[in-house]
Parts: sequence; C-alpha cells; structure tokens
Amino acid sequence: MSRFLLCIGTVLSIITVQAQQEDSAMIRRIADEILINSKAYDNLRHLTKQVGPRLAGSAGMVKAEKWGLKLMEESGADKAWLQQCMVPHWVRGGTDEAGIMSFRSTANGVGKTKLEKKLDVVALGNSMGTGAKGIVDDVVLVNSFDELEEKKDQVRGKIVFYNYKFNPTYVNVFYAYRDAGQYRGQGPSRAAKYGAIGVIVRSMSISTDNHPHTGATRYDSAYAQIPAVAIGLRDADLLAEKLSKGKVSVYMRTYGKFLPDTIGHNVIGELIGSEFPNEIITVGGHLDSWDNCEGAHDDGAGCVQTIELLRAFKATNYKPKRTIRFVLFANEENGLRGGTKYA
Amino acid sequence: MSRFLLCIGTVLSIITVQAQQEDSAMIRRIADEILINSKAYDNLRHLTKQVGPRLAGSAGMVKAEKWGLKLMEESGADKAWLQQCMVPHWVRGGTDEAGIMSFRSTANGVGKTKLEKKLDVVALGNSMGTGAKGIVDDVVLVNSFDELEEKKDQVRGKIVFYNYKFNPTYVNVFYAYRDAGQYRGQGPSRAAKYGAIGVIVRSMSISTDNHPHTGATRYDSAYAQIPAVAIGLRDADLLAEKLSKGKVSVYMRTYGKFLPDTIGHNVIGELIGSEFPNEIITVGGHLDSWDNCEGAHDDGAGCVQTIELLRAFKATNYKPKRTIRFVLFANEENGLRGGTKYA
Repeated sequence: MSRFLLCIGTVLSIITVQAQQEDSAMIRRIADEILINSKAYDNLRHLTKQVGPRLAGSAGMVKAEKWGLKLMEESGADKAWLQQCMVPHWVRGGTDEAGIMSFRSTANGVGKTKLEKKLDVVALGNSMGTGAKGIVDDVVLVNSFDELEEKKDQVRGKIVFYNYKFNPTYVNVFYAYRDAGQYRGQGPSRAAKYGAIGVIVRSMSISTDNHPHTGATRYDSAYAQIPAVAIGLRDADLLAEKLSKGKVSVYMRTYGKFLPDTIGHNVIGELIGSEFPNEIITVGGHLDSWDNCEGAHDDGAGCVQTIELLRAFKATNYKPKRTIRFVLFANEENGLRGGTKYA
Repeated sequence: MSRFLLCIGTVLSIITVQAQQEDSAMIRRIADEILINSKAYDNLRHLTKQVGPRLAGSAGMVKAEKWGLKLMEESGADKAWLQQCMVPHWVRGGTDEAGIMSFRSTANGVGKTKLEKKLDVVALGNSMGTGAKGIVDDVVLVNSFDELEEKKDQVRGKIVFYNYKFNPTYVNVFYAYRDAGQYRGQGPSRAAKYGAIGVIVRSMSISTDNHPHTGATRYDSAYAQIPAVAIGLRDADLLAEKLSKGKVSVYMRTYGKFLPDTIGHNVIGELIGSEFPNEIITVGGHLDSWDNCEGAHDDGAGCVQTIELLRAFKATNYKPKRTIRFVLFANEENGLRGGTKYA
C-alpha cells in the first residue's frame, strides 16, 4: 500500500503547482480516503473471482471490459469509454499433456511404448499445438543457449528441454524473470532452427510446487513453429535426473492455435483538467490475463489501483489542472496491442 | 526478504573493520547463500505446523525450546544452550464464550432470558475468568477513555464495551496497533475503577472477518481483576448497532487464571568472536506465541530469521571479530521475562 501512496504522491507532484503545504494536505486527504474507504480489494475480488480469466479474444475479455467501464463510471469519471483495438486471438484449444514414456519388448521382440509418468505441463502462450496425435521423441537437455549451440547437431527431430534455472540471487525478482524469460520467448525458435520438433521450458519460478507457469513465446518467422510447453519445477528436476542416467522419451500433446484477430478494447476513464485539459497524464494497468489463471497480481492489482486512484480523487473532490486518463489496457500478455493503440 | 538483507548489512557494518570492498563481497556472499539455500521457510513451517502454539508455561513452550536448541546446534553455533528464567503461567482454562441475551415474559409474568446471538470472543491474555457460572449484565458502550470518564456513573455493575476502532490512517500499522492497544492493556482496570464487572474490547484489527484477536491485558492492583474479552469486528459492529437502539444484555463465560510461575528458557546460540570474544552483539526474536494461534509473524519469522543468519554465517565461513549471540527469547507475549533475564 505504501508503494501505492508513493505513486499517488508522484502523480500529484507532477500535476499541481500549488504551494507545497497545500499539496501535502491534499496528499494526506487522498491517502486517508484510500486507507479508510478503499474499494481496491473488493474490486480485485470481483475481477478475479467473478470475472476470472480474461485472455485477449475470450469471453472473459468482454466481461472484464464491461466490468471496467461500469466501474470507471461508478468511480466518478467525467467521461468513460472503450477504445477499440484489434487483438490477437490465441486459444489453448484443449488440455495440455506430456509424459515420460518407457519402452519394453513384446513377446515377438517388437518394442512398445507405455506412459511411465505424467508430467505437469502447460503450453506456452502463442504456441502451436502438436496436433491431436501428439508427438513422441527423445529429449535433449540444455541448460543454456550456449549449451544448445554446443549440442546443435544432436537436436534434429528431438524435443529440446531448456532447464535454465530462475536465478534466486537477483534481489529484484523481475531481473530474474527477464533473465529466465529469454528461454520462453526465444527458446522454441532457436531450437527449431536446428530441427527440433518440440520444446519444454523449465517454469520461471522458484516456488517449490509443481505448478507450471505459462507466458508468451514469440516465433521467429524464419523457422518452424514447433509446439512448446512449460513444465513444473519438480517434474523438471525429475526429467533432468532421468536424463542424467540415460535416454528419455517424452510425449507431448497440445492444441494451441490462432483464430483471426478480433475486437478488443482499452477501457478509459477521464478526469478533465481544469486549466490544461489537452495535456494528458496517463495512469494504468493491463486488463487481460492468461486463460488458466485469475491474474490477481498480473495485473488485476494494477487495474484496481488505477480505478482506486480515480475514485479517491473524486471522493476528495480533487480537481486536476491537467486531464488524467485512467486506462485498463487490452492485451498485454500476448501482444501489447492495447498499449500500442493507446500510444 | 530485503528488510532481512538490510538487517544483515547493519550487523556486518558493526562487526567488521575490513575494507569496504571486502565487506561488500562478504555481504553479497551471505545474501546469495540466503537467497539460494535459505531454510527459513522450512523452519517456519515446522515451528508453526509441528510445534504450534507455545505460550509461556505450556507444553508447546518446552517443545519450541527443544526445537530451537537443536536448530541452533545444527545451524553451526559454536555453543548453544538454554538460559533458564521463571515465566508466568497463564492458562485460558476453557473455551471463552459470550452472547447477546434477549428477555421475554413467561406465562406467570416473570422475565426469562434466552440466548439470542452468540458472539465471537476470546479472553484477553492474563485476564481472570468469570467463573463457571459466567456473568450476565447490561452493556455500556464507550468509544474512548474520555467517554468512559463521562459515563463513569453508569458503569457500576455493568459490562463495559470499548468500541475504539483501530485507526487505518496510520500508514505505519504498528502505531495504530499501539494506539488501539491501550484499550486492551488498560481498559479492564479503568472500567473496574468505576465498578464495572466485565469488559469487552473491540479487536485491534481492520480485517473484515469476525475472528477475535487476543493479546495481553495488565491489571492495576488497585482495582478488581474483572474478566475481559476481545470481540470480532463484525460482532462488535452488531453489538454497537443494537446498543444504539436500546438496552442490550450480554453474558460472558471465561476461565482464565494464573498457575504458579514455572521454568522457561531463552534459547541461545553463539558464534565466538575471533578478536573481541567478550564484546557481544545480540540478534533475536521471541519464541513464545499465544495459545490459540501459530504465531507465524509474531514472532516465528523473527526466530527463523535469527537462526538463518547464524546458518548463513557458518555456511559462508564468516568469522566475526566480536561474539554474536542469536537468541530466541522466552515470554514476550505476557511478561517479557526472557528479555529481562537476558539483559
């Protein structure tokens, strides 16, 4: 909450030219309004529990936009509207699956595969599916892109497993996320360049559970768009351990695909400036979330804080000199189309 | 976690006279050790889930002391021991109860009371019980000590309900806690001074649930030791609303009492200083918690951070010039006997 108040302080310091003491009293009044009457948690509860997942192009997106527009109006925006923008429409298309296969000989000497252990995986956002039959092949583990270069002659026709570990020594966790995130973003195309047919990426996390963590990949158009999944940390360790002892074959079945671009919206609320209405300050968060989660932190919190600021400004009868736009951006997760449109 | 690292930084800046660059490398090594190999969460899980509540004098206290001593040894203390101190031994003695009573006339015209609504309450730590029969009487609501002074002639033989609200406009929550905490600490004796027979205190919290929040009261020996409970916030609001409409009678039944002081211990681990072994730096948290909760924040976190610091110092082969004592103090919650003994 104190970070949030700091943010208010920053916004106010930009938009006022009043004496410092008046500013300070106003900031205190706004801070008290939020500390006493905040609707941010209630709004976040509604967004996560009632609206739920809201990936670009989904029915949840439409529901979230309606929720946002209504809330902007109720919170006292002078004007509130939807700004149309085309958004990508990626769908997961089914339940992602993967597993370790074991081989055994049959009576007549022919090899037969059998599922040995299911793996907890989720297809990366924007990734293409394997097709309904799935793929089965040997896995090549690499711990880094450098190691991929070393093993580039071994990956043709195989599944590449990026076991790059999220680095816990970054005190600022976002650096660690960006650092490991390269394997999710670029991993599939860099493996496809050397003929890999699928990719498994260690989840970007240090949590000790086995829940896989999705996020967007970006295919390089020069290479094949091979299917890619994130794998839970415990299963990643298990797979790495098995691979340290010998050959491991894995099957993957995913259904991801793009439908044609569809219509989405930035949700915008405005407080019109009393002196410089054409000079605009923007405050915002992004409204979309992945399809398999509630997006409370990413970025439900940003959305409800944006609206809370509007509500608190109105509740304390604060009149900005410049116009302030409160924006819930469309499609940050897999396209940034909302932000681009707004800019 | 960053606060924790700051704390390490502070400790190190006191205890080293090495060049700044060496310090900085050492701090980084210790920080990395904690970020990568921390056992703090595992230890906290064990303390809260396996050891559990650990009020002074309870079996949980003994279990917690054993746990702490073993962990100090395992974490690499040069010496680890228990420092004996006598601790108060307050027991809750039963399940605290309260409820709103309604009156109705019977066929022969005699009034009869009936439980209308149970209230979610918990006896304040160190408070005396009502006796097995409980007490039933009219309630006098006061919003502050000033209001108690105004109503001092109305409270004799009655139950005083302190409805002082936790002030959410303190950005530093601890100030709000201290502010409201006066009613818990002094409320019973100040009401007893005017002849009240029981006290209900609004819980010190802004959470929206109805869970009552215990904590210690301190009787002034000049007045009667009347029973006192904390009440959940929703029930506090309900009671206040009913009182705004007319007379309300409440029953309370609590069983709190003191047994004779018993033996407790500060748990101490030590890294012996290489140059100034007799100059001692103390780092610590308190080991005890209330009887009805796990005490994860208060102060399980302080305990596991204390031990984590010891573990990380040993793991990185850090040799302090002055002796460092890592202390899990006994009996903070209702007596401060451990801290007093150590000092």
